[in-house]
Amino acid sequence: MKIGDYLIGAVRAAGVRHVFGIQGDYVLAFYARLCASDLTVVNTCDEPGAGFAADAYARVSGFGAVCVTYGVGGLKLANTTAQAFAERSPVLVISGAPGVSERRGDPLLHHKVRSFDTQLKVFREMTVAQAVLDNPDTAASEIERVLAAVKKHKRPGYLELPRDMVLAETVPTGAPPAEQPATDPAALAEALAEVMGMLAAARRPLVVVGLEVHRFGLEQSVLNLLERTGFPFVTGVMGKSVLPETHPGFVGVYAGAMSPPEVRDAVEEADCVLAVGPLVTDLATGMFTQRLDPGRTVAVGQEWIWVRHHAYLGIGIQAFLESVTQAWPETRPAASLVARGQEPEPFVPEAGRRVAIARLIPCLQTFLDHRTTVIAEPGDALFSALDLRVHEMSEFLSPAYYASLGFAVPAAIGVQLADPGRRPLVLVGDGAFQMSGTELSTALRYGLSPIVVILNNGGYGTFRPMVDGPFNDLQPWRYAELPGLIGGGLGFTVTTEDQLASALAAARENTSSPTLIDLRLSRDDGSPRLKQLTGQLKQRTRGGPAAA
Amino acid sequence: MKIGDYLIGAVRAAGVRHVFGIQGDYVLAFYARLCASDLTVVNTCDEPGAGFAADAYARVSGFGAVCVTYGVGGLKLANTTAQAFAERSPVLVISGAPGVSERRGDPLLHHKVRSFDTQLKVFREMTVAQAVLDNPDTAASEIERVLAAVKKHKRPGYLELPRDMVLAETVPTGAPPAEQPATDPAALAEALAEVMGMLAAARRPLVVVGLEVHRFGLEQSVLNLLERTGFPFVTGVMGKSVLPETHPGFVGVYAGAMSPPEVRDAVEEADCVLAVGPLVTDLATGMFTQRLDPGRTVAVGQEWIWVRHHAYLGIGIQAFLESVTQAWPETRPAASLVARGQEPEPFVPEAGRRVAIARLIPCLQTFLDHRTTVIAEPGDALFSALDLRVHEMSEFLSPAYYASLGFAVPAAIGVQLADPGRRPLVLVGDGAFQMSGTELSTALRYGLSPIVVILNNGGYGTFRPMVDGPFNDLQPWRYAELPGLIGGGLGFTVTTEDQLASALAAARENTSSPTLIDLRLSRDDGSPRLKQLTGQLKQRTRGGPAAA
Repeated sequence: MKIGDYLIGAVRAAGVRHVFGIQGDYVLAFYARLCASDLTVVNTCDEPGAGFAADAYARVSGFGAVCVTYGVGGLKLANTTAQAFAERSPVLVISGAPGVSERRGDPLLHHKVRSFDTQLKVFREMTVAQAVLDNPDTAASEIERVLAAVKKHKRPGYLELPRDMVLAETVPTGAPPAEQPATDPAALAEALAEVMGMLAAARRPLVVVGLEVHRFGLEQSVLNLLERTGFPFVTGVMGKSVLPETHPGFVGVYAGAMSPPEVRDAVEEADCVLAVGPLVTDLATGMFTQRLDPGRTVAVGQEWIWVRHHAYLGIGIQAFLESVTQAWPETRPAASLVARGQEPEPFVPEAGRRVAIARLIPCLQTFLDHRTTVIAEPGDALFSALDLRVHEMSEFLSPAYYASLGFAVPAAIGVQLADPGRRPLVLVGDGAFQMSGTELSTALRYGLSPIVVILNNGGYGTFRPMVDGPFNDLQPWRYAELPGLIGGGLGFTVTTEDQLASALAAARENTSSPTLIDLRLSRDDGSPRLKQLTGQLKQRTRGGPAAA
Repeated sequence: MKIGDYLIGAVRAAGVRHVFGIQGDYVLAFYARLCASDLTVVNTCDEPGAGFAADAYARVSGFGAVCVTYGVGGLKLANTTAQAFAERSPVLVISGAPGVSERRGDPLLHHKVRSFDTQLKVFREMTVAQAVLDNPDTAASEIERVLAAVKKHKRPGYLELPRDMVLAETVPTGAPPAEQPATDPAALAEALAEVMGMLAAARRPLVVVGLEVHRFGLEQSVLNLLERTGFPFVTGVMGKSVLPETHPGFVGVYAGAMSPPEVRDAVEEADCVLAVGPLVTDLATGMFTQRLDPGRTVAVGQEWIWVRHHAYLGIGIQAFLESVTQAWPETRPAASLVARGQEPEPFVPEAGRRVAIARLIPCLQTFLDHRTTVIAEPGDALFSALDLRVHEMSEFLSPAYYASLGFAVPAAIGVQLADPGRRPLVLVGDGAFQMSGTELSTALRYGLSPIVVILNNGGYGTFRPMVDGPFNDLQPWRYAELPGLIGGGLGFTVTTEDQLASALAAARENTSSPTLIDLRLSRDDGSPRLKQLTGQLKQRTRGGPAAA
């Protein structure tokens, strides 16, 4: 079997139906094979758009792939791949490359940087496995090795395919059996006994749900535990929407000092916290303002279970969760820590009232339905959206840790292609939109219908309260004209609540093309969460050692 | 003196007046110092725009600087910095970073990838010197070390500034004395005697001028040699416009089989070739189709002088050129190998005639004046433009070796800020324009007036003759609407020659904002040089070992 075709089959077997990227002469031969396969190639405007779309596709479907040319294509993916690594998104990067036979004598072939392995070395820093497919004898097994690592660690992998190897014959090996995490029964029994004792004695137990619950497919295991125990739960910022926010036990999104009071109380006054798959990052904890006393915490991760101040190793996270559920003596009703009606109050727009973040969230809350997937760009788009209550599982995406700007618009492409039943609602600042907003063209080209709301405050509003200067300003664009430029879609400029309501209504009806809403906020508007965070961030941006 | 201010002073002393970039919280403190200095901060829409602009600025002015935040900013510069490395452009990358005191305990700070030195490791692959300024005692000397290496090698350097070091006090050291390339007098005398013998005996001597002549400031030394000897000269693709193309000895741009016949004859029938600062790359030689017999060639580079099949080391390139000039017995008039009038025939547009590449070049030739700097994107924009005869030195820019798409529009910003007397004329394909064309917004914001001509053939026309498929197509944009979107500038859609002439006339008058011309070419239009090259490229893109 030809190496190119074997690779296509392996990617297909990983569940991929769409490959994102831009061609180039070193990858043209492989593109020709891709187009002849049952995979759909999705061309973005620029390579970073493909990288972000593949990341979002992976977050929704479990595996993503991006395919580009050597150097000028691959190195444009350094940032998007770094984000996928940091946030555990299983993306396979496939890069074309100069042919093995062309490299003899180390000639100055175009797109070469320092040496032919420069790009490989760069990707070693941001992928869990890498291979250059320069040997037909080992190509199939190398492909399987890299794919298995991506699936196991939920982090990016890198395959480089020299162009004269695309049609070379390799020996199919097939995917290796998936490694099952082994569990030491004695360690499990000991940990279980200890944790059950803590949970049984707790008067205010609480579960904290983190990102890894989603990445490693543990949603049902956690839900079973919640159904059995009746424990209330919060999610971290990274874990938002991992479990349904309509669940009766759901309290809110916890982010340290950057949390609403009822969520903060629930967490900080709990006497036993079971944290599942947490990722303790600075932005997600209001700059480490979380108050989780380790002495009353059980933290369950992929590689360890921390109980108070000691750790157990060698226990599978799923085995542990299931053991707790089975060991719990009786099914209890879900504890409701927060008073909550079945549905939020419908938002009633006031004609002529200037749009503002504080009332945008209730407005969008009314607009959301079970098909909506909210995609929030880092910055105040994310902080505002934390208080949006989304309906189903995994209907909220944001790079809340690595926090690269430029993610949200291309991510909408990945989300809707991964699941055509979803309608992406993108919340993006104007600064980030100027980076990658033209990828709306790609959404249009492939018949997608994201709704993009630009939180337009004339600049980088998240930074203004920290250190302000002309560098936080932007050239004011007439964003609503973008659909005209790219040849389709609807565009609205909105300054009042009634205009916003009309624009959202039109967006809901427009299921055949993108809708863009330029929301003209006042320059100093910002969410309450941002204002809480800014105080924490500001002292760190002063520039001196005293800021530590 | 504070580290931040010392760095600003050192960058200023290198001749920089504009720093390109986008801020972020890890670099805000340094941005505040930058804004208080006499350097001008230029904010692009996205970081790659800043990287390309700084590269172009460096090519024109001799040193460029780009300043971004950690991770999400820095890693977006991997591709632009790789290009600067490959093509010897002296760009300093300054990245903010988490504070030294914040890193204790290795917390999950936002923008971190694998570890705090991930970004440093990436930049080691594409810079000649690196430093993390985490020690006030050594910060000044580290800054000087990195800057000296950038100036010496004309390649990028990397400085990472933790945010709690910006205001820390360092001890100024001052720039070290520039290293003068040492020349071994005995080696010089031996080489000179041998080369003079070859040159004196030659009946058809020829000089080939390469990129390094520009990068290392050797233009006048080469001109002196040409004035004295009367030798005719060609430039390589990378060296185009390094010497004035109006010089009587200029024959044309040599690119192997991809050359006009008179240029090919001049080079391939020469009996002694003196190649100065050559960079022998694939695209620049029509896929290594150059015919330069080493047995009749003297190649003078930074690190060696090759005479026929042996090399001399330890001879400064400038010292060698000056010695040849001095040793030449008499001043001879310039040999004119090609018949040429003083000025090209003025182009007369035909009303209603469809625009086509073949007649675009004569049209633009008439339009060029001594203030125009042509910037050509890789692909057919570059191949077409090789036959434009530019007026002064270094009035042509193109990444003809590394060949990253997305360069040309942001490069125009760097060129015009580096030298406000220049008027950039950008030739860019529609594919590349969709990558970074919105940086026209940055040009508008800073009062610049580039003229951007989009060679719009509805897709990646350079690849179509190699392997075609839907991946070579693009969403058709109404490019002329971009000025409306970004809030200023002129836009024209052009299908006929008379429309093109009017648009160019309007562009010439519009010196206060960008002008964009959407040139609607037929789908299969292409330059004669592209057609020559395609044959060479096509067999390499087939995908099999046979293509080698």
